[in-house]
Amino acid sequence: MSITASSDKGHTVQPNKQQLLNRLKRIEGQVRGVQKMFENEQYCVDILHQISAVQAATIKVSLALMEDHTHHCVVNAIEEGDKDKAIDELMDVMKRMVR
Amino acid sequence: MSITASSDKGHTVQPNKQQLLNRLKRIEGQVRGVQKMFENEQYCVDILHQISAVQAATIKVSLALMEDHTHHCVVNAIEEGDKDKAIDELMDVMKRMVR
Amino acid sequence: MSITASSDKGHTVQPNKQQLLNRLKRIEGQVRGVQKMFENEQYCVDILHQISAVQAATIKVSLALMEDHTHHCVVNAIEEGDKDKAIDELMDVMKRMVR
Amino acid sequence: MSITASSDKGHTVQPNKQQLLNRLKRIEGQVRGVQKMFENEQYCVDILHQISAVQAATIKVSLALMEDHTHHCVVNAIEEGDKDKAIDELMDVMKRMVR
Repeated sequence: MSITASSDKGHTVQPNKQQLLNRLKRIEGQVRGVQKMFENEQYCVDILHQISAVQAATIKVSLALMEDHTHHCVVNAIEEGDKDKAIDELMDVMKRMVR
Repeated sequence: MSITASSDKGHTVQPNKQQLLNRLKRIEGQVRGVQKMFENEQYCVDILHQISAVQAATIKVSLALMEDHTHHCVVNAIEEGDKDKAIDELMDVMKRMVR
Repeated sequence: MSITASSDKGHTVQPNKQQLLNRLKRIEGQVRGVQKMFENEQYCVDILHQISAVQAATIKVSLALMEDHTHHCVVNAIEEGDKDKAIDELMDVMKRMVR
Repeated sequence: MSITASSDKGHTVQPNKQQLLNRLKRIEGQVRGVQKMFENEQYCVDILHQISAVQAATIKVSLALMEDHTHHCVVNAIEEGDKDKAIDELMDVMKRMVR
């Protein structure tokens, strides 16, 4: 991952913005595909597998974004001595992910 | 839940089809919202919270669909003496959901 | 899985009782191992990996037990016309597992 | 949380060591309780609920430990300029937790 991220005045540059956007577009397409499966009254188990694929893809995006966030925003915050808020936020995100 | 489901020649009628479709449309909208957050370079933590909301909504749809599936397709299969395949499929879905 | 399960007066015979008990004993040993790692002040990341192994082993026991439960108790309940309670219970278990 | 942690020559002092040890002992007791439920051939659904409680307690210990780890080891690593390894390790832990 070649990284040119910087955090400037609270404005975060996502180093993998385009790649993550592409993945989200693919997820959007998968969700529309699931809707079509419902409309065509396909077999529930096939629909459930497709929804599991959406979940897996969504978790991967979360993890990738969390990784970028930690490498950049959290590291910046710690280097600037503002660590507690950054770590509390990160832990809050993790808690929601593992529920 | 008023249910008029029937399984006829492998064709499954989803009793909550419209409700689940509405939820999937809402999820599709949420995914598009996340894309917009990326495009507007919003704060990663806010994006991560929004992706967690997508995950939670997706799991709820899975559980609702799995519940309908069990009440109808699995019960039908068991009543028709074809239980093993139905239960194996259900467990396979469950395994994917808890990963 | 050779199965001799039967449900008699609400009394359930677990077909894989010994195998599941062995797995639970192994999990108990893993949990004690984690305690020892704490006492020896081992590196947190190593401890976290070991706790992840406990989680994975615990989920596998849940899934195996749920599979037996569905093949026996749920099928029995459905064959005896008492399906709704059995399916509600199963769904409740699933909801807790995926949280 | 009053914290006196320090990382000295790779030796990590866990600030909440005793509290986490107590929780792990409670989890060990819960796992033994589940074994007893199997031995007494209790109803599978009750056993499954108890195993879910083990899972929930285990995840809470993981999150608490991960939080301490981030506040101390990760922060130390970043302040000492050794951030990449620390963040890769943290992300690896996270990936295992959400599987």
